[in-house]
Amino acid sequence: MENKLALNDNLSLSRIIHGYWRLRDWNLSDQELLKLIEQVLELGITSFDHADIYGNYTCEAYFGRALALKPSLRDQMELISKCGIRLNTDANPELDVKIYDYSFNYIVQQAEASLKHLGTDRLDLLLLHRPAPFFNPEEVAKAFDKLKQSGKVLNFGVSNFTPMQFDSLQSHLDMPLATNQVEISVSCLEHFENENMEFLQKHNIKPMAWSPLAGGGLFKPQSDKEHRLHSVLKEIAAALNVESIDQVMYAWLLKHPAGIMPIVGSQHINRIKSAVDALEVEMSLEQWYKIYIASKGDELP
Amino acid sequence: MENKLALNDNLSLSRIIHGYWRLRDWNLSDQELLKLIEQVLELGITSFDHADIYGNYTCEAYFGRALALKPSLRDQMELISKCGIRLNTDANPELDVKIYDYSFNYIVQQAEASLKHLGTDRLDLLLLHRPAPFFNPEEVAKAFDKLKQSGKVLNFGVSNFTPMQFDSLQSHLDMPLATNQVEISVSCLEHFENENMEFLQKHNIKPMAWSPLAGGGLFKPQSDKEHRLHSVLKEIAAALNVESIDQVMYAWLLKHPAGIMPIVGSQHINRIKSAVDALEVEMSLEQWYKIYIASKGDELP
Amino acid sequence: MENKLALNDNLSLSRIIHGYWRLRDWNLSDQELLKLIEQVLELGITSFDHADIYGNYTCEAYFGRALALKPSLRDQMELISKCGIRLNTDANPELDVKIYDYSFNYIVQQAEASLKHLGTDRLDLLLLHRPAPFFNPEEVAKAFDKLKQSGKVLNFGVSNFTPMQFDSLQSHLDMPLATNQVEISVSCLEHFENENMEFLQKHNIKPMAWSPLAGGGLFKPQSDKEHRLHSVLKEIAAALNVESIDQVMYAWLLKHPAGIMPIVGSQHINRIKSAVDALEVEMSLEQWYKIYIASKGDELP
Repeated sequence: MENKLALNDNLSLSRIIHGYWRLRDWNLSDQELLKLIEQVLELGITSFDHADIYGNYTCEAYFGRALALKPSLRDQMELISKCGIRLNTDANPELDVKIYDYSFNYIVQQAEASLKHLGTDRLDLLLLHRPAPFFNPEEVAKAFDKLKQSGKVLNFGVSNFTPMQFDSLQSHLDMPLATNQVEISVSCLEHFENENMEFLQKHNIKPMAWSPLAGGGLFKPQSDKEHRLHSVLKEIAAALNVESIDQVMYAWLLKHPAGIMPIVGSQHINRIKSAVDALEVEMSLEQWYKIYIASKGDELP
Repeated sequence: MENKLALNDNLSLSRIIHGYWRLRDWNLSDQELLKLIEQVLELGITSFDHADIYGNYTCEAYFGRALALKPSLRDQMELISKCGIRLNTDANPELDVKIYDYSFNYIVQQAEASLKHLGTDRLDLLLLHRPAPFFNPEEVAKAFDKLKQSGKVLNFGVSNFTPMQFDSLQSHLDMPLATNQVEISVSCLEHFENENMEFLQKHNIKPMAWSPLAGGGLFKPQSDKEHRLHSVLKEIAAALNVESIDQVMYAWLLKHPAGIMPIVGSQHINRIKSAVDALEVEMSLEQWYKIYIASKGDELP
Repeated sequence: MENKLALNDNLSLSRIIHGYWRLRDWNLSDQELLKLIEQVLELGITSFDHADIYGNYTCEAYFGRALALKPSLRDQMELISKCGIRLNTDANPELDVKIYDYSFNYIVQQAEASLKHLGTDRLDLLLLHRPAPFFNPEEVAKAFDKLKQSGKVLNFGVSNFTPMQFDSLQSHLDMPLATNQVEISVSCLEHFENENMEFLQKHNIKPMAWSPLAGGGLFKPQSDKEHRLHSVLKEIAAALNVESIDQVMYAWLLKHPAGIMPIVGSQHINRIKSAVDALEVEMSLEQWYKIYIASKGDELP
């Protein structure tokens, strides 16, 4: 399977994406992070997923400092970020509660802040982090236009949107939304059940998958569902002759015809390589369904 | 904020609408009702919401008798009515159960009855009162065409419809549906959760909101949810320097970018004025979300 | 009511359809089955519903052997079949679990198997049996194209699909899907509640109804719901002067404006005739709603 996927005429991402929501916790020096980025690029992973709020608004700057040590890497990668959530942390002392802000000014301000923190002149892809009950698609469209025309953001997408939320925003845009980043894993079948997968396939939009390993709980199964999944994942890992169940979980996502792009959130290069190796795993249709059925806990209707 | 909203090229409603579902209970003389109507018009409220069945089929006639005392008022107002529900009351002794009737004949008959009771030659807007499991969009389209071509009804809409119900009917019509009248309030978030708000914003259709004060329960909170809401509404009323929480509830609806038109169902001119005054209240985005979060009982995801 | 319904320019089905999912259990000789088919045709029923998997992959061949006794009947009938489910029975010893297979090869293979078993050179209509979490609409489109261009399948449809599933597949096809075969009965209102009826009416697609008698449970009511329905069906049967409640259940389906086509699964010609006779029953709107309300257990909102 190719480790490159065209989302539209102007944007291709690597099939496996490296995600940085826990970057602050990795406690890497700038040099160590630069080394990790270079190793990741050598694996063929060229797409890097950020958000303004990761690490309480710090992760983008960590990445930017590492990238500044070798700026030539920028042209080998696609940088993705997100905006729209405003945390009620010490970073925003004026806020009593977490809110979503999709005003023109806030979208533009946060995209520009991401550029500054990442140390780049452009984002390849900017996502709206979550759907919001207070949302003005016309205003969002104006913010996207401004960011696009200034060359600061090349492509736009969303995260955690339902079909109607996607459709409503799309109707107000001149450009096609490039992706919807949603939670998909052997343990989280939500988007198989809320019609999102069908919607994405209708429009030939490839989703990014966050938490593709279901948060890690399957490595130490506790609930009935985790035990069912762990057992079938082990069985299939053995049948496929792969070392670990994480590779089976990635292969399960990659086999699906929707073109799912898993976001790998690890700092360990061997764990990241395991995802890339999953591109070569040939899972059978019955194996795919065995995992699906173990997750549901019921045979198919 | 302007107290006039264009629904399409031919129809503008006042942002605040006066509703008459309890008119019978107000026990007003024709003269008293006329006086109320004139006071309401002086506040800039020009749109009046009726339905054939209000007051067991009597409210429209009450209004018509008051209007007959000063017929020149008709051209200063937009008259809205609804049809489709057939009550199993003494008014319909042949019915054992309440049913919905969207046959060609029934729609035309009820629209004509509304004209007669209201004492007018035209409705500015006729709504289908509720979606129905027995519904023939082609037949409804024919009834709308007949009423439109005869000049008896100038615009058409629906009430309590889901996106698919709206879409299905719209597909069979030559004219655009003007609105969807649904229940929205700080306490009823249903249409933020069933994708209706996104659908309406996609098509730039402004909703009318019935029960915008949540039935009044928040003035004497009992449930946990009511206490949470009452507390945050009081806090925000103080911060905004407004006298009563109803004004905060109206301002919360008016701030939303979907263009919500609250239907005020009071006979008391000071209560009605409170809604109009809400047009001038400047609520912050965080205040809007504080109310939303208090209603849900959970912080945002 | 006419016993013929145009689904598109090339396909008309009889309003009542004869279904063969229990054919194996009927234990009919080829001659007896031929006689039944001829009697059914005499009633004006020309459409026959099959699936590859009925009777653990045997029913189509039973039907084919009977038809072979009088091949001239083929041109008087429309043959419908389905594919996509792979049972983990002795017929597929390689499978540990039941799976769905909508690969190009499997669709073509199963359609060709249906032709062979039924002893015909063409299916008038091929349905995808169930929506699947693993589904590639582009691949399905190619299989449909191949089957259509070879003349082996004249029309295509789906079964048990939701609106988005239908829409997603339709978007990848050049030809319109002809129908969606779903469960509808006085006892199963699912498709009145999941927006499928509205979707079908929007696109003027007539549904086929499987299990139109709700599995027969209403003849010997046990649950509260069954007792409510049985009681109102008896009352309406008496009012309409029809002999049995099954005819009321068919009339309830036939009256609906969506153009529902009930699939009758009986081997008894008098039971089948009862469905055809329902075409002449004139149920009132209130009777229709009384049944609906009895099924829901609540009056209308």
